[in-house]
Amino acid sequence: MSTQTTDLRIGMVGYAFMGTAHSQAWRTVNRVFDLPLRARMTAVSGRDPGKVAAAAAQLGWAEHTTDWRSLITRDDIDLIDVCTPGDSHAEIAIAALAAGKHVLCEKPLANTIDEARAMAAAAVRAQAGGVRSMCGFNYRRVPAVALMRRLVADGRLGEIRHVRAVYLQDWITDPQFPLVWRLQKDKAGSGALGDIGAHIIDLTQYVTGQRISGVSALTETFVKQRPLPGDSSGLSAGDTVTGTGDVTVDDAALFVARLDGGAIATYEATRFATGRKNGLRVEINGSQGSVVFDFERMNELEFYDAALPSDEQGFSRILVTEPDHPYVAAWWPPGHLIGYEHSFTHQARDLLEAIGTGAPIAPSFTDALQVQLVLDAVERSAALGSWSEVEPALTEIAA
Amino acid sequence: MSTQTTDLRIGMVGYAFMGTAHSQAWRTVNRVFDLPLRARMTAVSGRDPGKVAAAAAQLGWAEHTTDWRSLITRDDIDLIDVCTPGDSHAEIAIAALAAGKHVLCEKPLANTIDEARAMAAAAVRAQAGGVRSMCGFNYRRVPAVALMRRLVADGRLGEIRHVRAVYLQDWITDPQFPLVWRLQKDKAGSGALGDIGAHIIDLTQYVTGQRISGVSALTETFVKQRPLPGDSSGLSAGDTVTGTGDVTVDDAALFVARLDGGAIATYEATRFATGRKNGLRVEINGSQGSVVFDFERMNELEFYDAALPSDEQGFSRILVTEPDHPYVAAWWPPGHLIGYEHSFTHQARDLLEAIGTGAPIAPSFTDALQVQLVLDAVERSAALGSWSEVEPALTEIAA
Amino acid sequence: MSTQTTDLRIGMVGYAFMGTAHSQAWRTVNRVFDLPLRARMTAVSGRDPGKVAAAAAQLGWAEHTTDWRSLITRDDIDLIDVCTPGDSHAEIAIAALAAGKHVLCEKPLANTIDEARAMAAAAVRAQAGGVRSMCGFNYRRVPAVALMRRLVADGRLGEIRHVRAVYLQDWITDPQFPLVWRLQKDKAGSGALGDIGAHIIDLTQYVTGQRISGVSALTETFVKQRPLPGDSSGLSAGDTVTGTGDVTVDDAALFVARLDGGAIATYEATRFATGRKNGLRVEINGSQGSVVFDFERMNELEFYDAALPSDEQGFSRILVTEPDHPYVAAWWPPGHLIGYEHSFTHQARDLLEAIGTGAPIAPSFTDALQVQLVLDAVERSAALGSWSEVEPALTEIAA
Amino acid sequence: MSTQTTDLRIGMVGYAFMGTAHSQAWRTVNRVFDLPLRARMTAVSGRDPGKVAAAAAQLGWAEHTTDWRSLITRDDIDLIDVCTPGDSHAEIAIAALAAGKHVLCEKPLANTIDEARAMAAAAVRAQAGGVRSMCGFNYRRVPAVALMRRLVADGRLGEIRHVRAVYLQDWITDPQFPLVWRLQKDKAGSGALGDIGAHIIDLTQYVTGQRISGVSALTETFVKQRPLPGDSSGLSAGDTVTGTGDVTVDDAALFVARLDGGAIATYEATRFATGRKNGLRVEINGSQGSVVFDFERMNELEFYDAALPSDEQGFSRILVTEPDHPYVAAWWPPGHLIGYEHSFTHQARDLLEAIGTGAPIAPSFTDALQVQLVLDAVERSAALGSWSEVEPALTEIAA
Repeated sequence: MSTQTTDLRIGMVGYAFMGTAHSQAWRTVNRVFDLPLRARMTAVSGRDPGKVAAAAAQLGWAEHTTDWRSLITRDDIDLIDVCTPGDSHAEIAIAALAAGKHVLCEKPLANTIDEARAMAAAAVRAQAGGVRSMCGFNYRRVPAVALMRRLVADGRLGEIRHVRAVYLQDWITDPQFPLVWRLQKDKAGSGALGDIGAHIIDLTQYVTGQRISGVSALTETFVKQRPLPGDSSGLSAGDTVTGTGDVTVDDAALFVARLDGGAIATYEATRFATGRKNGLRVEINGSQGSVVFDFERMNELEFYDAALPSDEQGFSRILVTEPDHPYVAAWWPPGHLIGYEHSFTHQARDLLEAIGTGAPIAPSFTDALQVQLVLDAVERSAALGSWSEVEPALTEIAA
Repeated sequence: MSTQTTDLRIGMVGYAFMGTAHSQAWRTVNRVFDLPLRARMTAVSGRDPGKVAAAAAQLGWAEHTTDWRSLITRDDIDLIDVCTPGDSHAEIAIAALAAGKHVLCEKPLANTIDEARAMAAAAVRAQAGGVRSMCGFNYRRVPAVALMRRLVADGRLGEIRHVRAVYLQDWITDPQFPLVWRLQKDKAGSGALGDIGAHIIDLTQYVTGQRISGVSALTETFVKQRPLPGDSSGLSAGDTVTGTGDVTVDDAALFVARLDGGAIATYEATRFATGRKNGLRVEINGSQGSVVFDFERMNELEFYDAALPSDEQGFSRILVTEPDHPYVAAWWPPGHLIGYEHSFTHQARDLLEAIGTGAPIAPSFTDALQVQLVLDAVERSAALGSWSEVEPALTEIAA
Repeated sequence: MSTQTTDLRIGMVGYAFMGTAHSQAWRTVNRVFDLPLRARMTAVSGRDPGKVAAAAAQLGWAEHTTDWRSLITRDDIDLIDVCTPGDSHAEIAIAALAAGKHVLCEKPLANTIDEARAMAAAAVRAQAGGVRSMCGFNYRRVPAVALMRRLVADGRLGEIRHVRAVYLQDWITDPQFPLVWRLQKDKAGSGALGDIGAHIIDLTQYVTGQRISGVSALTETFVKQRPLPGDSSGLSAGDTVTGTGDVTVDDAALFVARLDGGAIATYEATRFATGRKNGLRVEINGSQGSVVFDFERMNELEFYDAALPSDEQGFSRILVTEPDHPYVAAWWPPGHLIGYEHSFTHQARDLLEAIGTGAPIAPSFTDALQVQLVLDAVERSAALGSWSEVEPALTEIAA
Repeated sequence: MSTQTTDLRIGMVGYAFMGTAHSQAWRTVNRVFDLPLRARMTAVSGRDPGKVAAAAAQLGWAEHTTDWRSLITRDDIDLIDVCTPGDSHAEIAIAALAAGKHVLCEKPLANTIDEARAMAAAAVRAQAGGVRSMCGFNYRRVPAVALMRRLVADGRLGEIRHVRAVYLQDWITDPQFPLVWRLQKDKAGSGALGDIGAHIIDLTQYVTGQRISGVSALTETFVKQRPLPGDSSGLSAGDTVTGTGDVTVDDAALFVARLDGGAIATYEATRFATGRKNGLRVEINGSQGSVVFDFERMNELEFYDAALPSDEQGFSRILVTEPDHPYVAAWWPPGHLIGYEHSFTHQARDLLEAIGTGAPIAPSFTDALQVQLVLDAVERSAALGSWSEVEPALTEIAA
């Protein structure tokens, strides 16, 4: 760590699952990577005074507050890290950008298209003044995913023909699992589609360099009523229940799609795939090769190279732990794995590097808006039973 | 083999890929299974006199002819085995049934819905007179597939929620691969959809016991023109070519679907999945468990049992080579694999058993017609860009 | 099949597990491969008149007898196929060779070193008169194994450093499993060591081209007494038992070894590896690459090529079903698997080809004797608790 | 984190690979686990003033020194964390224990048996005064390994019959790789045997609850001379070389073994397994089940349960990321992986818990001495070409 390093002072809003993961990243990133900026965990905000104090102590934040707006008005904070549920993203991020704070915002960017458009427009305006923003599609920062991107970009797969992507979970297969906020449309926006479908949309577009242009979809809610949790924040089935309520989001969303570079695709996001815990799987077939990624084996990438001798071709299991793989040189020797949290550390690394050097940052809020527009097309197609085109993001921004 | 065994005398029409596989099955079935009927390879027919004579010698048929109608009029033939391309299935099968011959017909049942309806009607009429018929969806006879069916039927998966099925090949990714007959709609009916998509439609309906009721689809032809083969029967790229012609079938077909028992599904059939040779893969998720099958590892079945203790749950790799697995007791000790051809031997076994004992046979021509109706719905949906319902097979038959 | 083909008339001795597998091979080989000789299943012999008659009918042999010597004296038999237990191999094979019959003898070649030496000497003498012999190490004929051999021979692995080979089964883990003849030294010679250990010794020597020169071993018998089977030929645990008897062979044999080309190795053969059914696994590491084979996935070969770019190296799963893989062109399209029995069909193919053309045949009886000498060194080492050199086979033959 | 938490002030000696991993653990452990003690990173020592200062800044240590003895004499340090090469372990650890400091010492415990005995004796003496010690066999703290241990302890595997363990690496296959200190016996003690062989010895003894009682071994040095590195601390091949020197340690060590509970085993440690990066693999077969672990897939455990219905048995891939798996509840949701470094965080957790509560700690220095005695038996056996018994550790301690 050179002595010229400047601090980047962070205010984080929210401290639950994502807040915990981001905290681990901010604590670790400068211990592992040499960067032009040093992350400082200045303050965290949350609604409950006692809980936010405990979280600050546990996670390593110097200060805490119950007023997220106070983070934005402080002079000694440079970046706002938005880790709240989606319904508050727009308000916080737009206010922060307006105050000249860099913003890292968790995905999905927003709960509505209108909010997302407003955020993307705010980000474009802020960028002109040197204020940077980024949406937290952390899976781009898994070394195997970045390697997949590099192979495609280097032409090793040739022309991309097929994408097949699934994100499979099973945490609500029990019909007695309660009606937590993630199963309520007014709070969560959508169900499996926005929560995990958004990840595979972003990831496959990132890797292929192609955008989804149209879709044909169906969605399903298998369990239409669930017990109400006694405690509105409860996630476990053991809480006292007080009746049942309607599930108002999708349990599963499936669609076929065309990409603007000529590829065709299938996508599936579900919370009812018994036995699949975090089954984000992507296969991409090109004219010269194929790649396969499975997040449950996130340190591996399968690669088929059709340029090898015909009797030696096969899907090769690359253990993505070599020094010349993306991000890996900073970590452990070959064969020593990294985990889920490292994707956030790499995200923090890329963001600190980009802010410090002025390099471009992706995914931008406009990129994230485009993902929202795909989600919107999926919902329209499922509702209408017809092919739906994805609306353009950039034109709207320009207007 | 008991001395009471009666011969079942077979006339086979066609001797190419499917004819070779069927011949291996007829030669082997009574050597391995104890059955009420003994297969006799009485005669084979084909158009080229020299080639059919050579095929008869090579494959073990006692006689050969260039006139398939002569097989149907002979008194010493009990069953007609139809191994020709799809455009002649209807004529041969209907004539054979009318002549009182049992019929085994390769899939897809026919190239058009009208032909398929006529065949199904003829089979129903013949059945009344004790004449039996069966369509050759051989993958049902893979032990792992039959075990999958048994697990579902025994309720081990609970309520079926999800089906995801792909059939991936890559034999025409090279744009210089010639325009063989399988790429011409007038001869082949359709492309990947009917050739391999039909298999996963039948297999998943068989295993789940549910029928596809509606679909939303897209199809694509990546390479729209190809070199004409110098020899119309040629399958290799090395032949002298005489120009180019239009590819008139789909290279790939993708669709999402609803099944009549409440499951939802994705299907994909393609010949452009680089590195996938015969990648028929099916995953089925139920409320109590899941199964996964991959034909490239056809002796294995993955099974997830959600009734096990939570810290011991996982996808189990069952090596389907135990004596209590379907069909296996007749073969080798545990851990000794069987291959592709065995599915045909098992099909022959089931057919001989059913004819000999009068037991029901599946898939019937009506079952196979229903698969054709799904293919038809897929093509309509892809053409119209809208959800398409699958027409009912049974009602039409009844009418 | 060309019209010039000459018949090779076969007399088989024994009709149990190996006899069934060999019969399938003889029935099939000329249906699949174009060969200079055509196998004729002339006669089979066995001790029980009723059983051998039934076996002949079931397996497709034209005649049957209870006197194996009559097969040897018949003029219309060209080859004796020895499928009996090991204690009769020497007598039958030596008599057949003396009578000018070609011999295919199942492994292990014999139950004692002396017998094996006598057989090897007889084979060398007979060879001078154009009479051929071969020992049935069928696993050499698995396409993936032959491909492994080719990769090593082509130098793709560089200098061979490591061999690790296991053959894992679990069929006698139950202590109530009865004392069948395979568990009695006077009948079986040895236990896991000779039955399955012999296979991995032969296979690894074949693939590497190196011979085991010395070993350090231990053997174990976990269950020292077992119920006596009521029926001495019984293999199942359900038979009436009449007391218990001593297990006189090894349940497991483990050894480390040096090979004469500089490689070092571990070997393990056991019948107590719960869950492993036919787990013949071999990994070979060379200075430039590695290969891995698992018989439970016999259509696959894993290959690591250290000459690839460092960020693309990985163990590649080659599906050994391409036309340019050994033996495969005669079978099915890519991705369509073959099974255990095909190794015997390939063995028959190679033998018919070699006899028909006069080409060399391996493994010879001398090769098989060398395997016996390794087994002998293992037993000596385990008994003495010291390193044991493998005695030379060739010198003894010469003397 | 409760307010009653007491600090445990740490002085770490050495800051290279292991020091980096330990620092990550000390920084993280209290952020993730609720513990009776809070780790404080008080000071680090190293020989080079500039490098140790940089390391302290990078890794997060409050102070730094070039004199490790100063750490031991300070009153404000409670625990000495020994991360130096093996030749200094004894001196540092014994001095620290004598000064009343708890000690965490990296493996292998020492370079010689005499040193290890002295350390174990010192630890036993110190324990009487409440001073605790532990050897850093971190792989015990991988959740899948701890689960394996739990399954064995719960009797799910029945009587243990077989252990097969390998630790495969490939970082010195290139003969031009220089003669770094790890390849020199006077500095490293031994080669692959002590470096990685020690891990699989400890791990398998821990999981099975059985101790190795005797071995038969061979060792090999494939590349006997290597270029001298220009910089004696260099690990990379690019340094200026000044000639060649002798490799004085083993490149590979192989042995068969008996365990004191009746199991038999094979072990292999090598740095020449091309393509294997950190291939620590263990399979254990018991009378009722089997487990398989592969560190390159450290979040998974394969489990075969012979108590399941026979047609459903198979090796189950348990994704060891459920809340009821060891250590996992503190981390991420199911299906979200952890990495190599987490084993050190878990080790820190267990040590803080044990010191804080007075609970037993394993592995003790006596446990680590026993591993050294196994290494010693392996070296004796390889040198003598005979079976070698492992000397008892506990008796010597008692004396």
